[in-house]
Amino acid sequence: MIAVPPGGTIGILGGGQLGRMLALAAARLGLKTHIYSPESDAPAFQVSAAHTVGAFDDKDALARFGQACDVVTFEFENVPAETIEGFERVFPSAATLRITQDRFEEKTFVNELGLKTAPFRKADRVLDGSGILKTRRMGYDGKGQARVNGARELAQARERFKYAPCILEELIDFEFEASVIAARGADGSFAAYDPPENIHRDHILRRSIVPSRLGDAQADEAKAMAKTIADALDYVGVLAVELFVTKDALLVNEIAPRVHNSGHWTIEACVTSQFEQHIRAVAGWPLGSAARHSDAVMDNLIGDEAADWRALAARGGALHLYGKSEIRAGRKMGHVTHVSPRTASE
Amino acid sequence: MIAVPPGGTIGILGGGQLGRMLALAAARLGLKTHIYSPESDAPAFQVSAAHTVGAFDDKDALARFGQACDVVTFEFENVPAETIEGFERVFPSAATLRITQDRFEEKTFVNELGLKTAPFRKADRVLDGSGILKTRRMGYDGKGQARVNGARELAQARERFKYAPCILEELIDFEFEASVIAARGADGSFAAYDPPENIHRDHILRRSIVPSRLGDAQADEAKAMAKTIADALDYVGVLAVELFVTKDALLVNEIAPRVHNSGHWTIEACVTSQFEQHIRAVAGWPLGSAARHSDAVMDNLIGDEAADWRALAARGGALHLYGKSEIRAGRKMGHVTHVSPRTASE
Repeated sequence: MIAVPPGGTIGILGGGQLGRMLALAAARLGLKTHIYSPESDAPAFQVSAAHTVGAFDDKDALARFGQACDVVTFEFENVPAETIEGFERVFPSAATLRITQDRFEEKTFVNELGLKTAPFRKADRVLDGSGILKTRRMGYDGKGQARVNGARELAQARERFKYAPCILEELIDFEFEASVIAARGADGSFAAYDPPENIHRDHILRRSIVPSRLGDAQADEAKAMAKTIADALDYVGVLAVELFVTKDALLVNEIAPRVHNSGHWTIEACVTSQFEQHIRAVAGWPLGSAARHSDAVMDNLIGDEAADWRALAARGGALHLYGKSEIRAGRKMGHVTHVSPRTASE
Repeated sequence: MIAVPPGGTIGILGGGQLGRMLALAAARLGLKTHIYSPESDAPAFQVSAAHTVGAFDDKDALARFGQACDVVTFEFENVPAETIEGFERVFPSAATLRITQDRFEEKTFVNELGLKTAPFRKADRVLDGSGILKTRRMGYDGKGQARVNGARELAQARERFKYAPCILEELIDFEFEASVIAARGADGSFAAYDPPENIHRDHILRRSIVPSRLGDAQADEAKAMAKTIADALDYVGVLAVELFVTKDALLVNEIAPRVHNSGHWTIEACVTSQFEQHIRAVAGWPLGSAARHSDAVMDNLIGDEAADWRALAARGGALHLYGKSEIRAGRKMGHVTHVSPRTASE
């Protein structure tokens, strides 16, 4: 793989906070970014050398964008796989997206690698049952998910999801949630961060804490799971593997083929952030060290929590605001990371 | 002072690496930047929401720029003070620039505050002497400086400097060089970083090391000197005070009314970097903590040292490349910071 040298351009599909933080990381390495987004005021436009406003199915605009970039990547896993296939040089691959965009394909793939998930089945012909009904495609932050108990609730949820293809997943009695953020280079090199423990509310990540309550052996197991998945996908870039930690196992909940909210603390607590790591991988640079020099707690700022920016700025910690023009309920507006001297993991 | 809220625009005069790193820090706080530079390919343009190519004496272009910004600052202390005076809201002030742009005025000001400098005098009518001849204005990185010994060398240097007004400064037998980077808010709040020890070669900074060899009491004295200077200037923003450390005193060498190369390590080793601190001060935000969580060594990449970027990327440490389109001898192309767990200062 020929590397993109300093001065080269990384194309990023999607212009939200992840695209913005990728652009900031690319800039630190002397790389330019070109952001492609359907939104005319995408936050990442403010920090990029070039941008294109266009739809994800506008083939002409996408082709021009691709020609202006040395390599293309994305911040958003629901970009159509066909869009990704149109680029000469794009990471992660369209094949990866085809798997991770479909919960049934993704979980089947994970099980075939010998890794565990919650038990699941296609729900299209199921008339009775309980658990969590999830649409196979286009879900994030709890969208397209419903807890159901019995035939009636199942039927109601299926109707609410407009009879989209679904899976029905068994409820898991887990201790806590964790995730592994890892990077893989085109040469097969691999680097995983220490897994954070993640706390969600209303299906939205609120807080990531590192070190987590995972023991050293479990943390190593989690990193090895991420490596198994990344190798099987011949993955290039950063990926996140969300985990349920039960009394006796680590279950894969979801694979995100991109930088991840639960990895934002790497900006302050590691020599190489997840954003820089992703840029290094897709640009064909050597991966940086994923070593963690500090403990960290990252809190998301959701909706109105970002309104009193003056109080946030005075409170300490590393404040990140995403440059979104409007505060909306449930919208991720920023985050704050507090670091402290490193302790041994529990 | 009414603060610039997230979404507001910070105008920056100068588009080199300091402007670029200021723009990246502003972005983290949700602020936009507008860069003004005479160079059409200024590195900071790549990471800013808007830019203007214009000369520092183009009054019309400057006025339009000023109107597009909520507050104006600069990365370069040789912007004409008249240019600064034209803006409604600009920090640091034109009055500060008038002092710091003239070595004679600056050193006289420092002495009048009760702080020490190397002995100096106006050199315009001096016919014999030895020491360092320095032009009063427009010097940086050793430009406009010559070591002279006796009447003949003095006359030659004066001719080389085209008879520009000069001072003749006594040679100082110092142990090492250090600097204090500090910030002052419009409300008089003040925050100083631990002083780094600085190593120069050919008058260009090569390395900054923190902690320095200054003892705790001396480090506190250095911070107090910076506060005395900042208060006397009613300063708003980040400033750097370069120091000669002799056997028995701290001598002020120079005041830089801006973020400073010897403060780049604050990006990795402190919760609030010097760049974010400057943006906070000029935007009317509360200052962040200047506490240092790690030890650090920052090495500049000068000219060809940045050519083998692949080896640099593989070597570890936090790599910063400035996005300059051309490598030139003596040009600052980037820097690398290595952090390590914090030790007590010596």
